[in-house]
Amino acid sequence: MVPSPRSWLVGLVGTGIGPSLSPALHEHEADALGLRYLYRRLDLDDLGLPAERVGDVLRAARLAGYDGLNVTHPAKQLVVAHLDDLSADARALGAVNTVVLRAGRAVGHNTDWSGFARSFERGLPDAERGLVVLVGAGGAGSAVAHALLTLGVRDLVVVDADAGRARDLAAARGGGTRAATLADLPDLLARADGVVNSTPVGMAAHPGASFDVRLLPRRAWVADVVYRPLETELVHRARAAGHRVLDGGGMAVFQAVESFRLFTGASPDADRVLAHFAELV
Amino acid sequence: MVPSPRSWLVGLVGTGIGPSLSPALHEHEADALGLRYLYRRLDLDDLGLPAERVGDVLRAARLAGYDGLNVTHPAKQLVVAHLDDLSADARALGAVNTVVLRAGRAVGHNTDWSGFARSFERGLPDAERGLVVLVGAGGAGSAVAHALLTLGVRDLVVVDADAGRARDLAAARGGGTRAATLADLPDLLARADGVVNSTPVGMAAHPGASFDVRLLPRRAWVADVVYRPLETELVHRARAAGHRVLDGGGMAVFQAVESFRLFTGASPDADRVLAHFAELV
Repeated sequence: MVPSPRSWLVGLVGTGIGPSLSPALHEHEADALGLRYLYRRLDLDDLGLPAERVGDVLRAARLAGYDGLNVTHPAKQLVVAHLDDLSADARALGAVNTVVLRAGRAVGHNTDWSGFARSFERGLPDAERGLVVLVGAGGAGSAVAHALLTLGVRDLVVVDADAGRARDLAAARGGGTRAATLADLPDLLARADGVVNSTPVGMAAHPGASFDVRLLPRRAWVADVVYRPLETELVHRARAAGHRVLDGGGMAVFQAVESFRLFTGASPDADRVLAHFAELV
Repeated sequence: MVPSPRSWLVGLVGTGIGPSLSPALHEHEADALGLRYLYRRLDLDDLGLPAERVGDVLRAARLAGYDGLNVTHPAKQLVVAHLDDLSADARALGAVNTVVLRAGRAVGHNTDWSGFARSFERGLPDAERGLVVLVGAGGAGSAVAHALLTLGVRDLVVVDADAGRARDLAAARGGGTRAATLADLPDLLARADGVVNSTPVGMAAHPGASFDVRLLPRRAWVADVVYRPLETELVHRARAAGHRVLDGGGMAVFQAVESFRLFTGASPDADRVLAHFAELV
């Protein structure tokens, strides 16, 4: 074998992934580490495949020599059936955002929850973890709930406009988690140590904020998973009102950092990735 | 869309491709040109696929975002059935070593013949092109025959241990080409302007030379398609006997250069690729 240097080939599978920052974040960090690394967008819409056919893309990626895939909406749950194994966290969440292809096996991981957890530990290291309200019980909400419980939150209340979805998430998480309705939100917020928005509200396409920060006690911290813009209406208002705030950038960066580490075994420089991310958004 | 820089993803499909120099040649030249470029080995044996399933790899590569594939033994003919279109030369040869994947279409090219032609024009620019003997009527022989006729050889005689294969090649090439048997070889060589070895004889696994250079007139030129080693027994003996000699390196390099150009649209620096090739072998 002629010594061509080791290289890495990874991709992102999902729909509407054109604006994803992952290719730029991964490739920039790989360059800084001196790794030959290619990160491709594999958009199901462009491929003419419904999300239910994500298994086709996974099979193609295996045959075509990929080292791994990131998986995003709407395929994070659908991909699970096509994997050989799951990490304990991915199994608990029933959702995969990172597939490592190695030695003929496809193993699913979830770095969304760990991305939020690392961002939280970094940005709000000594935050109170008693009563925490989680607004939004979709995929991001599920990852954030797993992170908050892992971080030691004692009383996690999940609220969603779809009350059934909130109940399902609370039931899936078990001890220390309960569901509430939008009608309960004002009272919950008034007593909260902290609150996380894991709805899409605050993105350019969904302007506004998912709750009114004026309902919070001054001591409460506020976190957002939306990172485009970094300064969402929620982040802006919470900062202006004097709350400690965690924007969505850290979760986005740390999920990428952890995926990169799973793909390559190399350790990215998280501060460098954060700086590059800040440049991009 | 976040401006991640354009990148290229290509691969080599075939069996026993571990020792191929193509990944190193392509990636080294891409680096010199400042292109993000990944060249992957897709070995049918490693994938557990018979050569007849080369269409599966092609489909996977399309789905997985490849920009192109090189194709080598034993799939150069087999891949043709799976392509949307062929260049005129690939069609004439019935063999493809380069597939460009662009805008949803797979188009086959053949840069083996043009690689030999460019190497010949560079290394033996004013060689006599009257009677030329081609020893070896396999895939490489077919490409070399196409090149020699394109270069203006007037009387091309194809010789192969398998007389039927020589006849088939001569018949396929038509005007100006004829087949002869090994028994005719001494007489043909005595009158030849030049001779090309396109058998594997001269490789480490096939030591020796496919004919005796002492049968040639001193003025005859000698070309070899074997490039590992560059100094085959044939090349060594022909040089020692004072013949003008073309080793197999140029064909190997120029087929890679032309494939690279087809994949990327960028123009490689052939002298730089030749120098890197010489370092590698």
